[in-house]
This record gives sequence, structure tokens and C-alpha cells, in this order.
Amino acid sequence: MSTIPYKTYLEESEMPKQWYNVRADMKNKPAPLLNPATKQPMTAEELSVVFCKELVDQELNDTDAFIDIPQEIQEFYKMYRPSPLVRAYCLEKALDTPAKIYYKFEGNNTSGSHKLNSAIAQAYYAKKQGLKGVTTETGAGQWGTALSMACAYLGLDCKVFMVKVSYEQKPFRREVMRTYGADVTPSPSETTEVGRKILEAHPGTTGSLGCAISEAVEVATHSEGYRYVLGSVLNQVLLHQSIIGLESKTAFDKIGVKPDVIIGCAGGGSNLGGLIAPFMGEKLRGENDYQFIAVEPASCPSFTRGKFAYDFCDTGMICPLAKMYTLGSGFIPSANHAGGLRFHGMSSTLSQLYHDKLMTAVAVEQTSVFEAAEKFARIEGILPAPESSHAIKVAIDEALKCKETGEEKTIFFGLTGTGYFDMVAYQKFNDGVMTDYIPTDDDLAVGFAGLPEV
Amino acid sequence: MSTIPYKTYLEESEMPKQWYNVRADMKNKPAPLLNPATKQPMTAEELSVVFCKELVDQELNDTDAFIDIPQEIQEFYKMYRPSPLVRAYCLEKALDTPAKIYYKFEGNNTSGSHKLNSAIAQAYYAKKQGLKGVTTETGAGQWGTALSMACAYLGLDCKVFMVKVSYEQKPFRREVMRTYGADVTPSPSETTEVGRKILEAHPGTTGSLGCAISEAVEVATHSEGYRYVLGSVLNQVLLHQSIIGLESKTAFDKIGVKPDVIIGCAGGGSNLGGLIAPFMGEKLRGENDYQFIAVEPASCPSFTRGKFAYDFCDTGMICPLAKMYTLGSGFIPSANHAGGLRFHGMSSTLSQLYHDKLMTAVAVEQTSVFEAAEKFARIEGILPAPESSHAIKVAIDEALKCKETGEEKTIFFGLTGTGYFDMVAYQKFNDGVMTDYIPTDDDLAVGFAGLPEV
Repeated sequence: MSTIPYKTYLEESEMPKQWYNVRADMKNKPAPLLNPATKQPMTAEELSVVFCKELVDQELNDTDAFIDIPQEIQEFYKMYRPSPLVRAYCLEKALDTPAKIYYKFEGNNTSGSHKLNSAIAQAYYAKKQGLKGVTTETGAGQWGTALSMACAYLGLDCKVFMVKVSYEQKPFRREVMRTYGADVTPSPSETTEVGRKILEAHPGTTGSLGCAISEAVEVATHSEGYRYVLGSVLNQVLLHQSIIGLESKTAFDKIGVKPDVIIGCAGGGSNLGGLIAPFMGEKLRGENDYQFIAVEPASCPSFTRGKFAYDFCDTGMICPLAKMYTLGSGFIPSANHAGGLRFHGMSSTLSQLYHDKLMTAVAVEQTSVFEAAEKFARIEGILPAPESSHAIKVAIDEALKCKETGEEKTIFFGLTGTGYFDMVAYQKFNDGVMTDYIPTDDDLAVGFAGLPEV
Repeated sequence: MSTIPYKTYLEESEMPKQWYNVRADMKNKPAPLLNPATKQPMTAEELSVVFCKELVDQELNDTDAFIDIPQEIQEFYKMYRPSPLVRAYCLEKALDTPAKIYYKFEGNNTSGSHKLNSAIAQAYYAKKQGLKGVTTETGAGQWGTALSMACAYLGLDCKVFMVKVSYEQKPFRREVMRTYGADVTPSPSETTEVGRKILEAHPGTTGSLGCAISEAVEVATHSEGYRYVLGSVLNQVLLHQSIIGLESKTAFDKIGVKPDVIIGCAGGGSNLGGLIAPFMGEKLRGENDYQFIAVEPASCPSFTRGKFAYDFCDTGMICPLAKMYTLGSGFIPSANHAGGLRFHGMSSTLSQLYHDKLMTAVAVEQTSVFEAAEKFARIEGILPAPESSHAIKVAIDEALKCKETGEEKTIFFGLTGTGYFDMVAYQKFNDGVMTDYIPTDDDLAVGFAGLPEV
């Protein structure tokens, strides 16, 4: 047995006091958000209608590499962080691989995922600005839960639009959010203008993150003292989530290990962007090399089959345009149990890095993901979220490649969360009735046809 | 801010290598199990029909204070332990109390509770004995999940009888167990003789732990290569669970703190017995004094309203007799959402300690428990299991007493698990339709009437 422990925790004194802003080290900066009417870069003033002021500053800041984490947020982080960096000894043994496998486990908090890292930051700035509350969307429900928790802690009102398919598949998620005092509406709903329009155009739709975003933004911009907050995609979110990568980097340094391959699931990019941030920084600065792999569902393949273009972030087309790998804001992915990976687009920052070939991406099918999830649950003792299991699937694939080649690579992946609220999906898998959905080129053409001209 | 961190984790090297057997330090030993036919103490040979051999030895051993934890179990413990000792700074602040509040959080593993500590031990000894599988009962589902996980890890077959009311209230628990390869049957069932008898006598019963135990024991004793395992009550379980208290003690010593009041919820006693073990040992040896408080539901008040007598551990009366505080094996508690606290009896060890006035007990009502649970969730960020919330309720009460008196007591409680699978209960609470059930003296008389003569 090696002297490296199963789990490496940082001391509180070793926890990051600043977030890392990878954009500062990027030669090719991510393209700015555009005003959909003027096609000009959104100004801070324009963005402040939707977002809190300090978050707008963070969104637009592509020059400062480090941004202080306010003391209050540091204290909140100490309630559930540091998260452990885990050496997957049992998985290595079961796979009989020479590879060393590590994962950063973000699921040990009640939101069940890494989402709390940004939720508390966004809620904090809203509170500081003297707002009454915030609105948001949620897919898998992890972001909505995280925001509910953060708002309950700070005494803010919280209105959540939950993608209808998740609302139905995860009946108990709503109760967790309600326990934290949030108001939860299935989306699309009749409560907003944009919701009514979407329902008229797509009767019976099970919704999408893009729809839910439109509704949440509408409510925020039409209610006094409210702003909209988003759990992924945005630069500010990746900034907050850098805590994952920063803690990981410090823990790796502590045990004297350097990962070779870094793997993360990618929906809007919140986890992946945060996980890889400091490692990507070293790569950008030429200090170290790493292989980065984004894993997305074959049913919603924005990196691997999308276009790098300006697009709306929402289905209702009321949000700014972002340059990103996208399937088109009109693309509504077919049913898939990884609700958190059903976004049509991708973080502009990650899109630029991918476009510049600084990272790679792979799309995997649902049933193979659940096979990996079940294996992992039985071997490593953690029931993973379907989203996280995308990364597990590829980590196992990479470890098995090492078994063939004999390479002793160090594989590191982000285990973003737990699957306790995904038992409908696990039940389908257990019953052998889970299927795979892969959009045809014709399906994708529909989404691409709706891309705006810029 | 004090220099004591929010969370204290032990290093792997500081983790216990031996369990602590509190019986060794008890002047008045817990009374032995009796053969229900002869009323003579059960021999090791008799017990070996039901339990694994090494577990029988542990069950009967009231002289060795320390018992080695096998290396394989130590390795498994490292997968999900050490659990954190948490300083509840946020709760202290919210209550505005001079008390210092700490809790040991056992919910950060997929079984969602401390139950895994004994599950892996029992499964390990079954495997070592060359058995094919094990049978058990589960109430809240945490024990069944824990055992499923342990069996999946070791490649053992696992048959679980789940109390019907929990089976219905927690539809997704079954799927977690199935994901870990277990076979789950709602109890009472038609699959056993004792189950059919109970259904005939009590048609429409929602079951009880006592019923489920009878069914699991019947299957174990009638199947080649199977033994029965139990998640609470037994001496062996308290032994394994002593890891909770041992880790806590080491962590307290590390930060230089001595708790004054130690609080744990009590169903069959697995958590409470493990939590207090090393502290009780110090008290028994006259080295230190602590106040211990057992918290039980008012709907199933074995300590506070039960009799200290020999009784069956199961409803079907096929198990050995144990001397304990009991409501009678015929007592079926009214509906309560803390399924893990619905057992009619109590650990013989804890019963003896309580009888000898070495600890106290208090019964609390369900709605007040959920009020405490919601408060705790919002303030400390962890959604607690209903069982665990019994301890939270009393810890808050004690902290508020300190606020009145100005005493700076150090309050320590066991947070046994998470409530992710208890959202039906939380929903009732959120909807304001939760009620309290307290058995009348007449209700209790029915159970007492069935106590065996010894």
C-alpha cells in the first residue's frame, strides 16, 4: 500500500482565499457577450439589469488572474469544504490497471453537487447589493437546491424554474428546495409571457434549461429588487468554481502527485471549468502540460457536434448572445437522465479553449454511463449523479487503455455529485429499459437553422 | 473566530485500529440472551445457527475492552471515514447561545448513515466464514442500504426485508439497494411462514422492525449458507459502532476540548451506543464525567415508558430473549417518520447503563423534531434524517437552556445521517399536515401483556 491516503483533505488554513480567473492567462480571450439588438458587446450597465453589479464586474474581468473570496463566503465554504481528493484504490484494483486514479468529490453537501460553490457567491453579492431575492432555472435540481440553501442561509427570497422533465422525474427535489424556503415552478409554465409562448409553440414539451432560463430572466427583470442568477455557462460561475481546481491542485502538491489526464463532465461547463482552471493556467503559461477531456452526453453533444458561433443562451431569445459551441437555442435534447448536461450551448471560456485545441472532448451514450455508474457505486461506495458518471465512464476507459499499454498514467476526474435524487433513472437502468438517444444530423440542422446572424 | 476549525478530520494514521467494548468496563454486565425454550443463557453453539461464528464471539465477549479491527475492514473504513467532527458555529450564532455545539456527522456515505460501520464488519465475517449470503431487516432503509453496499463490495448475496411503511414512503431506497445488487421484500410478506402468520393476525399492518426481523431470521435459518445480521440492538453492533465515539474522542483530544453533554438518538441503540462508548468507559472507570442523553420518539418510548424486562427482539417470537427496556414485542408503534427509531426494545447494554442511572433519556414529539430539522438544515446546510433530528432537537434545547443560565457548556451530539430519502416526511411537514402520535397507557398495556415470563 502506498503512503498516499485514500482521502486528502486540506487544512482550513490551506483553503483558497482567492478564486482563479483563467481568462487572465488566455491569449485568445473568450468573445464578449453581445446585445442581441445592437450586436455590440454588452456594457456593464446593460448587464446590471439582469445580474448583480459585482457579478457583472467579475463577468467582464478578463485581466485579473486572482479575485479575493470575501470573508463571509470563505466562512460558508468552511461549512462543507474542503472537499476530499480521493485516491480510487478500490477502482484501480478492480480494473487491474497500472493507472493511478484520483477524483475530487464535490457531493458531500446537501445540494449534492459542486453547485453550492457558486450559489453562495452569487447569493452573497445579491444580498450585499441589498436585493430582495433572486430567480434562477434548474435542470437536474442540484443548482436550484444549492441556490435555495444559499438563500436560506442569507435570508434571501429564491424563485426557481425547474425543467419540467426533471420536476417530474425528481419529485423529492422540489421538497428539498421547499424545505430551504424556495418557490419552485415547473418550466415551461403559464406564469411568464415567454413560458406561455414556448408552450404554444411546443405543446407537451418537457422543457429545457434554455426555456427555464428565459422564464427566470423574465421574472427577474420584471420584479423590483430581484436579479437573475445562473448556475453554469457564465464566466463568473467558472470563476467561483475554480475553488474545485485550486483545492485539488494544493492537495496534489501536498501529496507530491501531478495528474496527466484531467476529466470532467460538461453541460454548461461549471464543473469542468472550475476543475481544470489552475491546471489550464499552468498549461497556458507553459509551466506544465496536461491532457484535458470534456465529457458530454451523446444526446446533447455541443462540443463534439456543435458549431462555434454566437447564439442565445436561452430558448426565448431574451438573453445576450454568447460565442460558444452550440447546438442552437432552438435545440431541445431528447430525453436523457443527466438533466444537468442538457444545455444546448457551452461556456464561452471553455469553447475558446476547445477551439484553440487546448482541450479535447468526447461524447458518451447514456447506458454506458450508467454501467460505469453502477460499477463505481459498487466498488468505490459512492452512488454518483448521472452527470458525474459521464466523467467516471471516460476515466474508466482511460484506465483500461493504460492496462493495455502498460502506461502508469495519473488520471484525475471531477466527481461532481451524488445520485440520490436520480433513482428513477437508476430504476430504468436496473430494469434494463434504459435507452440511448442520439440526435440525427437532421435533428441538429433544426437547431443550427435558428442561429442568429452576427 | 476561535482557532478550532469547522471540521476536524483525523489523519488515516490516527484512525482507530481496535473497537472498544464498553461491557468490559461495566460493573453490572448486560444480562445474557436467553434461549426462549429453556430460559437458559444462549450458548455460542446455539447462536451460531443464526449468526456468524466470530460475531457470536463478539456478542458474548464482555471482558475484552479492545478488539482488533481486521485490516480489510480498516481499509474499507478508509473509503468513507474518518467522518468529520463538526463545530456548529453557525447554529451557535443563530441560537445566540454561550454553549459550544459539536456534532459527529456520519451521513457522508451512500448508505446515508452510520450503519455502514457495522454492515461492513458483519459482511466481512460472513465472507470469512465462507457463507453465500446474509439476510436482514431494515426500517428507514439505511441499514439495508449499508448492508447492500458491504455485500456488493465483498461479493455476498443480500436479502433485505424492509418494513412496509418505509418501503412505501421511501420508494427510491429500494432502487439504491437494487443498484447494489440486493433483493428487497416489503415486510410482513407472504414469502415466510412468520410473515403469513403476522398478516393473518394483523391484516393491513404497515409492519415493524420486529416483524421484519422474524422474517429475515426465518429465511437465514432455512437457507443453506446464509446467516442473519442485525443493524442495531446487539452487543456486536455497538462494538462496531464504537468507531464513532473513538474517532470523536481522538478528534476532541486533538483540539483540546472535552464535551459536557453527549446526545444521541436511540432506536435500538446502535448510534448512541457507539457514540458514547469511550466516554462512558471513562465515566465507568471514574476518569471523567459526562452527561449522556438518549433521545427517543414519543411514539415509541422504550426508555422513558418501557419496562426493564426480558423480551423477544422480534414480533414472531423466534429470536432469543434479551433483557432490555421494552414496550413488548407485540407493540407496533403508530406511524412515525423516523423508521429507524420504531423498534419496541433497546440494546441490553444501554438498557443496563440506563437502569444504573449512568445515562438519562428523553422522548420528543415528531413535529418538534422536524422543526429542529428544518432549522438545522437552513443554518448548518445539512438536511438531516428524521432519526438524527431527534438528537438535534435536544441539542438545541440544551443550548437554549445555556442561553438562559449563561452556562458555556460543550454540547456534543451524533448526527447519524441524511434525510434525502425522507422527503415524504419533509413534504408533510412543509405542508403543515404532520401530526404527533403518542401511545396511551392502554396502548402500552397491550405490549406489556405479551412480555414472556422468565
